[in-house]
Amino acid sequence: MSLDAVLKRIDDEIPAALDRLFDLLRIPSISTDPAFKADCARAADWLVDDLRSLGFAAAAHATPGHPMVVAQGGEGGPHLLFYGHYDVQPVDPLSLWDRDPFDPELQDGARGKVIRARGASDDKGQLMTFLEALRAWKAVHGTLPCRLTIFLEGEEESGSPSLIPFMREHADALRSDLALICDTGLFQDTAPAIVTMLRGLLGEEIVIRAASKDLHSGMFGGLARNPIHVLSKILADMHDETGRITIPGFYDGVSELPEAIRAQWQNLAFDHAKFLGDVGLSIPAGEEDRTPLEMIWSRPTAEVNGVTGGYTGDGFKTVLPGEARAKVSFRLVGQQDPQAIREAFRDWVRARVPADCEVTFEGHGASPAGTMGIDHPAFEAARAALVAEWGRPASYVGCGGSIPIAGYFKTELGMDAMLLGFGRDDDQIHSPNEKYDLECFHKGIRSWARLLARLA
Amino acid sequence: MSLDAVLKRIDDEIPAALDRLFDLLRIPSISTDPAFKADCARAADWLVDDLRSLGFAAAAHATPGHPMVVAQGGEGGPHLLFYGHYDVQPVDPLSLWDRDPFDPELQDGARGKVIRARGASDDKGQLMTFLEALRAWKAVHGTLPCRLTIFLEGEEESGSPSLIPFMREHADALRSDLALICDTGLFQDTAPAIVTMLRGLLGEEIVIRAASKDLHSGMFGGLARNPIHVLSKILADMHDETGRITIPGFYDGVSELPEAIRAQWQNLAFDHAKFLGDVGLSIPAGEEDRTPLEMIWSRPTAEVNGVTGGYTGDGFKTVLPGEARAKVSFRLVGQQDPQAIREAFRDWVRARVPADCEVTFEGHGASPAGTMGIDHPAFEAARAALVAEWGRPASYVGCGGSIPIAGYFKTELGMDAMLLGFGRDDDQIHSPNEKYDLECFHKGIRSWARLLARLA
Repeated sequence: MSLDAVLKRIDDEIPAALDRLFDLLRIPSISTDPAFKADCARAADWLVDDLRSLGFAAAAHATPGHPMVVAQGGEGGPHLLFYGHYDVQPVDPLSLWDRDPFDPELQDGARGKVIRARGASDDKGQLMTFLEALRAWKAVHGTLPCRLTIFLEGEEESGSPSLIPFMREHADALRSDLALICDTGLFQDTAPAIVTMLRGLLGEEIVIRAASKDLHSGMFGGLARNPIHVLSKILADMHDETGRITIPGFYDGVSELPEAIRAQWQNLAFDHAKFLGDVGLSIPAGEEDRTPLEMIWSRPTAEVNGVTGGYTGDGFKTVLPGEARAKVSFRLVGQQDPQAIREAFRDWVRARVPADCEVTFEGHGASPAGTMGIDHPAFEAARAALVAEWGRPASYVGCGGSIPIAGYFKTELGMDAMLLGFGRDDDQIHSPNEKYDLECFHKGIRSWARLLARLA
Repeated sequence: MSLDAVLKRIDDEIPAALDRLFDLLRIPSISTDPAFKADCARAADWLVDDLRSLGFAAAAHATPGHPMVVAQGGEGGPHLLFYGHYDVQPVDPLSLWDRDPFDPELQDGARGKVIRARGASDDKGQLMTFLEALRAWKAVHGTLPCRLTIFLEGEEESGSPSLIPFMREHADALRSDLALICDTGLFQDTAPAIVTMLRGLLGEEIVIRAASKDLHSGMFGGLARNPIHVLSKILADMHDETGRITIPGFYDGVSELPEAIRAQWQNLAFDHAKFLGDVGLSIPAGEEDRTPLEMIWSRPTAEVNGVTGGYTGDGFKTVLPGEARAKVSFRLVGQQDPQAIREAFRDWVRARVPADCEVTFEGHGASPAGTMGIDHPAFEAARAALVAEWGRPASYVGCGGSIPIAGYFKTELGMDAMLLGFGRDDDQIHSPNEKYDLECFHKGIRSWARLLARLA
């Protein structure tokens, strides 16, 4: 009865909820770029104000990087922690956006209205589904549904350098019965899903330096080492002809998929032709003896995320450059050890650099893969709430992306974490023209309300 | 007697000659970048004015690209054409320059004063050596030394797209007994040299497109094709383990060095340890069975001049990009056919691109290698003039760079060309902090005066 009132309140409040989300989306909180530091702080302050309006005791805590927002409120029931992140990815290339990434707009999309803006799906729109559910609950009931801790980070898109120290320092304030993390998506855009398997992430930046300056390729070409050649060979050699990664020891700690999970994934009937077709591709590019779902959920990867060297402007310049650089990331699974792989990768690269060249490395984050414990009763409550809202079975699935926070709740605070979210594959997170379907926002809010009603 | 007067006049006029050169260097005539189109026109006009002040009938001729400066003057003797180019290379990365590249300054250098600016050596400083020699001659004699055509191009650094049509259309105005080209250097920084072997140049830009947009490397990584991987493999495969280029048919038309030339080059005692050491390198990087001089003068090359793809800004972004691109140039020798190699390269690349990716090409210039005829008496006159000025033997040498104009004088106008210049290996042409030694400028002017005295 009272759930119906909360759901009706949510339905009625969607225009106002969108206004609030748009306010947050207008703040360009790009955490990886120091030019946006003040904007990150502004986003944190906006959330503190909003949480206070819901009755939370909330504050933005300074860190060496961007602030952490922590809020405490409510009483009774299980003590739940909700995690989200208010920082967003960079927006380049800006020329590929249809509009200003920080001027959100409701547009027509393939499945109804979409919220278009950087961060609409990852993760501002998703984190606001939870806050809006609380807002409706409070409007109907006058109180929050149970004891709640809200924990919002501003460095998720830049490797979370302050996260572990902060969690350790504020362990007592953060420790609760279960963490809820809203940074994942629906399965194949329609089926609600709880992620129980997450890949880890290791980032490395390599710079190969050869000549002490850019050279004329006519005068020196053929005799002087070209660092782009050295780098290209290294990047090409990372995979063998079958798609396997060649770095020694890389597969240490990678297990075969348990038969039960393999069978469950088979039942999901993943349509990889559509998944790839939606982005203009058709041929699975990973290890040749793996299924497409394995490639994105349970197999480790090595991907070059960026490469640059020499003249890259308009026209042509016959330069033989002094340096070339690449950003490489590894998605990790099972028991792969990020630090061991970092060292193995660096040794492997060093062995491929000629004696008169130099290589330097910069590490960018290192988080192991995670497998979630699903013993807490909230997992089955969430499945039931999701089925009720979406009218489809809710599955336990894998996720190719890295959400290191899930593992940190376990290792730092001894808590399990439940990952559920409402993103779609075509949300273009990390890409130009990011969007979040209005349906996902709306039903996401309702899903949380249903789950809270079961747990409170 | 009168030569002495000309040489004294040159010595006395150096400060004024520097003022004139600095005026020309201040004009940012970067031909490859459309933003500098008006500056290229301004440089052409400046040269027209200067040539008129020397008594030439001079004009800047419009082309589809940048103007060609043609001037006629003088009477009697051999009819000599002088060629130079007033356009310059781009200046990026600007951050590596000690000063504004277009604010020339006389600075202290390793061998006395240096003229620091983009174009100081390539080619404004060099072309002005000839005009200053004429100026001194005219001041002493009242006339120009012989019948002269001056031909100054503004597209040399961007593939000379207008050159051949212009030469054909103005063949009668340009045809003369011999072309003098001042765009080369001293041998090992000290010995005067006349270049009789030049490598050709072929430029290709490749774009590999995979997904229709940038993807999240967690969501898609392992399954979706990464165009940087495709490109890296192509670039890595261009050379085999011995440094040979693997494109089928690439070496068609490449001959072994004649024994006589090999012996002469041996006598030059090229110090490749110093040549490489001056730019921070030590290991010859070309084909393993070739001498260093062969690598830069008589062997063809494939060099990546620029590569870019994905996120290249500060920090880290786990993107799986939609495209990657490279600029590749080939230095050609002997009878290698640029068009045949362009086609062979494109076919070879296409065969390496997965079926669901796309490759596009853009060609940037194509000029064959050149071997100079040295029958004209000016060659021996030049050798004698250079020995007199520099006090060292003057050699016939090769040049790794591409100066297509030398070949075009032969193919389009039936003329031989003599290439002599006064650049040094550390001039950093095409690189930040380009310079031209004041000694080279000064003795260059005197060298031309001595040569003109012998020919006039």
